[in-house]
Amino acid sequence: MEFELTILGSASATPMLGRHHTAQVLTVGRELYLIDCGESTQERLIEQRIRFGRINRIFISHLHGDHFFGLFGLLGTLHLQGRHEPLHLYGPAGLDEIITTQLRCSGTPLGFDVEFTPVDTERHQLICEDAAVQVYTLPMRHRIPCCGYLFREQPRRRRLIRENLPAGLSPDQLQALTRGQDVHDEAGHVLVRHADATVAPPPPRTYAYCADTVFQENLAELVRGADLLYHEATFLHEMLERAQQTGHSTARQAGQLAHLAEVKQLLIGHFSSRYRDLQPLLTEAKREFDNTQLALEGLTVAV
Amino acid sequence: MEFELTILGSASATPMLGRHHTAQVLTVGRELYLIDCGESTQERLIEQRIRFGRINRIFISHLHGDHFFGLFGLLGTLHLQGRHEPLHLYGPAGLDEIITTQLRCSGTPLGFDVEFTPVDTERHQLICEDAAVQVYTLPMRHRIPCCGYLFREQPRRRRLIRENLPAGLSPDQLQALTRGQDVHDEAGHVLVRHADATVAPPPPRTYAYCADTVFQENLAELVRGADLLYHEATFLHEMLERAQQTGHSTARQAGQLAHLAEVKQLLIGHFSSRYRDLQPLLTEAKREFDNTQLALEGLTVAV
Repeated sequence: MEFELTILGSASATPMLGRHHTAQVLTVGRELYLIDCGESTQERLIEQRIRFGRINRIFISHLHGDHFFGLFGLLGTLHLQGRHEPLHLYGPAGLDEIITTQLRCSGTPLGFDVEFTPVDTERHQLICEDAAVQVYTLPMRHRIPCCGYLFREQPRRRRLIRENLPAGLSPDQLQALTRGQDVHDEAGHVLVRHADATVAPPPPRTYAYCADTVFQENLAELVRGADLLYHEATFLHEMLERAQQTGHSTARQAGQLAHLAEVKQLLIGHFSSRYRDLQPLLTEAKREFDNTQLALEGLTVAV
Repeated sequence: MEFELTILGSASATPMLGRHHTAQVLTVGRELYLIDCGESTQERLIEQRIRFGRINRIFISHLHGDHFFGLFGLLGTLHLQGRHEPLHLYGPAGLDEIITTQLRCSGTPLGFDVEFTPVDTERHQLICEDAAVQVYTLPMRHRIPCCGYLFREQPRRRRLIRENLPAGLSPDQLQALTRGQDVHDEAGHVLVRHADATVAPPPPRTYAYCADTVFQENLAELVRGADLLYHEATFLHEMLERAQQTGHSTARQAGQLAHLAEVKQLLIGHFSSRYRDLQPLLTEAKREFDNTQLALEGLTVAV
């Protein structure tokens, strides 16, 4: 099953020509999850030819404008496109009030429900689950309440070993084997053991999105072994003091966290506009964790 | 004195790659006025190399998102740039509540005051005046309260006729003549009459911004003789019924209004995304009023 991340924007707050505010789309099978929604995210979606209507769940990390100012335009466009299905929105408390105020003052009710779930940004807990993924919050430490999100694929089915299968099994019986059930004959005797006829699926893949935060060593436990980790890297380590003052991390720290957590891949982003050239940030992170990439706009990474 | 309009965006609500929502900058001498502020206006300002700090007054026509969703990002960036001077904001009631709610919920106070003046969208009246212009509201008829804005240059000074000036006048005396005052000698006798030594200045230039509206014949009186008229032209006239249902005008109607009002130039904009090619809209408007241009992004027109 497809499990991939597309970067729509990875600039930090000060805007810069050609770099856009944070937004990402995670594709898991046929489901699309939008993670943060900086200004003009809808334009990035059009550029990437992603159909808006496929997005059913949106996760906002925190209420700094560079992470959610694109939400209003996107909701408006979904309305104009005739959406009726509810949209599930997750984020810190207050986001619902902002949306409600805006809709009321502009006299423009949406043609669909926004089902808002406020998240507790201090806790690591399951906040939603569908056929494709489970989503957990990841507590961040920033200037205002902020949380990341961990997406864990639902367990996949066991795989059939064709040569170990007797002839004549029905589709239902094959399905049962992939679910880890044995197949019995009419008398109730075991006909095929799932352990003989199937192998265990690969472990569920995980994507961990760590939004704006200072370096937190204890985060490593929560994202341990992730297939893909996104971690902000607003500054070079020479600006550590500024990073701490503003509630951000350095590229070296992002690399350190990836190393500590033994993840498989690291993406760094949320680059300060002071860095025209992003290569030094990449070099710094790679010194700590080699399998690192820059979260450049338009990049798609398989998880 | 410079008096020119730059188009930052002229798309209607449904977004489209490469066309942005409504925003314009009017430059009068050293003053910049921002008129409407669709999503990602700050990016358009950067593209046009317009310094954000020069904007002191922002005029919002109405609270449909395609006319103001860029305001929050712009305010945030002004804050990050260290602005302290107050910013004057004009628009329909409710806009202040939207901004206040957003700032409160995101825990991010701005480092400058936003001085909001609610406008009465039903009346034509003077709402602000500075050294460069007087600004009047223009009542629009749309689905929600909406107003346009008329910018009238402050009267310019009389021009000196060098050959009619006696030698030895002081700078103050020359200034007095340009203000329409006669110059007297110490005994109080008229030394130079302003009527002899100066000519009247050209009449004040005017720019009329007509935002989302159905065709209103009575608007012609309010914008009569304008040097430049912007009028929305969302649809071709074959879609008149749809225009009326949605509170919009057709290109033909925009041309008719320019003709009725005997303006000097017409700009049409707010194009529906159904028109990939805008030429038919231009052709239709020009049939009614020849001196018409499309309000294309990046276009600058002298008023």
